[in-house]
Amino acid sequence: MRIRLDLDYDGTDFHGWARQGDSDLRTVQKVLEDNLGMVLRAPVELTVAGRTDAGVHAAGQVAHFDIPRESLQQRSIDGDPTKLVRRLSRLLPEDIRVHGVNYAPEGFDARFSALRRHYVYRITTHPAGPLPTRVRDTAAWPKPVDIQAMQTAADVLIGLHDFVAFCKAKPNASTVRELQEFTWHDVSTPTEPQLYEAHVVADAFCWSMVRSLVGSCMAVGEGRRAGDFTAQLLTATERSPDVPVAPAKGLSLVGVDYPDDDQLRARAEETRAVRGALPGAP
Amino acid sequence: MRIRLDLDYDGTDFHGWARQGDSDLRTVQKVLEDNLGMVLRAPVELTVAGRTDAGVHAAGQVAHFDIPRESLQQRSIDGDPTKLVRRLSRLLPEDIRVHGVNYAPEGFDARFSALRRHYVYRITTHPAGPLPTRVRDTAAWPKPVDIQAMQTAADVLIGLHDFVAFCKAKPNASTVRELQEFTWHDVSTPTEPQLYEAHVVADAFCWSMVRSLVGSCMAVGEGRRAGDFTAQLLTATERSPDVPVAPAKGLSLVGVDYPDDDQLRARAEETRAVRGALPGAP
Repeated sequence: MRIRLDLDYDGTDFHGWARQGDSDLRTVQKVLEDNLGMVLRAPVELTVAGRTDAGVHAAGQVAHFDIPRESLQQRSIDGDPTKLVRRLSRLLPEDIRVHGVNYAPEGFDARFSALRRHYVYRITTHPAGPLPTRVRDTAAWPKPVDIQAMQTAADVLIGLHDFVAFCKAKPNASTVRELQEFTWHDVSTPTEPQLYEAHVVADAFCWSMVRSLVGSCMAVGEGRRAGDFTAQLLTATERSPDVPVAPAKGLSLVGVDYPDDDQLRARAEETRAVRGALPGAP
Repeated sequence: MRIRLDLDYDGTDFHGWARQGDSDLRTVQKVLEDNLGMVLRAPVELTVAGRTDAGVHAAGQVAHFDIPRESLQQRSIDGDPTKLVRRLSRLLPEDIRVHGVNYAPEGFDARFSALRRHYVYRITTHPAGPLPTRVRDTAAWPKPVDIQAMQTAADVLIGLHDFVAFCKAKPNASTVRELQEFTWHDVSTPTEPQLYEAHVVADAFCWSMVRSLVGSCMAVGEGRRAGDFTAQLLTATERSPDVPVAPAKGLSLVGVDYPDDDQLRARAEETRAVRGALPGAP
């Protein structure tokens, strides 16, 4: 049986998503696999839609695992995986929440069936820094910024490009991606003035890409870089040391889109052919 | 010189607002007074608009302190207290933010000049619990609730009443208050379903009053208490053990209203006459 998980986490106190071999490093994958394995009394190995770095959050992450049917027949679950939501909420630490546990449709692969990933980056330029109750998921930038200049710098990045300048190098991994949305929003309130959000959507992201996209736009918005800075970066043939990488804490994976059920297998095969062994960390 | 501070804090890791005598207990007042005293090279004693309990947050707290004029003449401040905002943001821990430092108007008293205090209580009934990035300022309630029933239970509490049933006892302190607003809002989003906010406004609150008002409405909303539960409580002559006190983490002080500057002194005198030594913790 394949099970689909819909989950959220505060990445502050995790070393990212991925289990680090046999080490005891506290990662989301390790804590989740250990707890699921205990409840289901069977080894659990998760495949995730978007591997997130240390400090990066999720409010809409998706994963899947395969489990023998019998593991779900125990009395408290009785073949109904949705019962695991409340059970896990009592077991898991409060910085992980599993809000959906369902049988996955035929052909579903959390990673390879995904059409696109949605990220939000939350950042304030207020001199006093972020609101304390949001300091774990809001980054601070020391200087005021011009949101129009940032949007112009973002617009040139839309479409299919080689984002090598924005990606941490990974041996023989393609850095060609299709950036489908990159919009800046002033979401200031009286309680949180000078607050901005970037909404970033792509088929997939390479390592550190979203934080680099955000950092480069902030540098333009602050006036430290010229308006054509991002366009210049698109012509680079290797990672650029000039790109400021925005802090992890501002970044949240907020959604993963999948095709209709009858397209899931085909999508997975298509992506595997293109991405193959490519890791998907933003 | 009197200085007005506008500030915010995440109450999770504080033992409330008030300094605990000479103890080293980490309170908001102690951390703030110690840092201000260091920067201004003079003892600082804060008077606050609303003393908050351990675990309670603020996004709009107000305080004042008196300081010799010379303390503000040092080179980095140069008589302009607003320069303390950025200075304090570098000094203070990230769970306190001072977003306003200004000369207080003539006659201003953060506590006695206040007209009313605004609180928000944030709570979810989702079986998976709060979104992890909001778990520090969102309470969890195990059962679904009927928001209409909660609103009806809240409506009867509006006006001038003796809220003794809802207040932790304090020797010779009046529990008569004027509850000016108590409204329930469904603020659910796809990311945070089954999420509610109570907006509570009063001239002042007695100890633990807001959390008791919220807890009693939740008990009605969940169906554990009849619809006339809150009306019954208004007839009580002492604190009621039946009132569930909602967890501190859901509560935030979000604003304090003051009269126009020319009314500040009169308001302070009026309130002192009524409240006198009354502590103002919600």
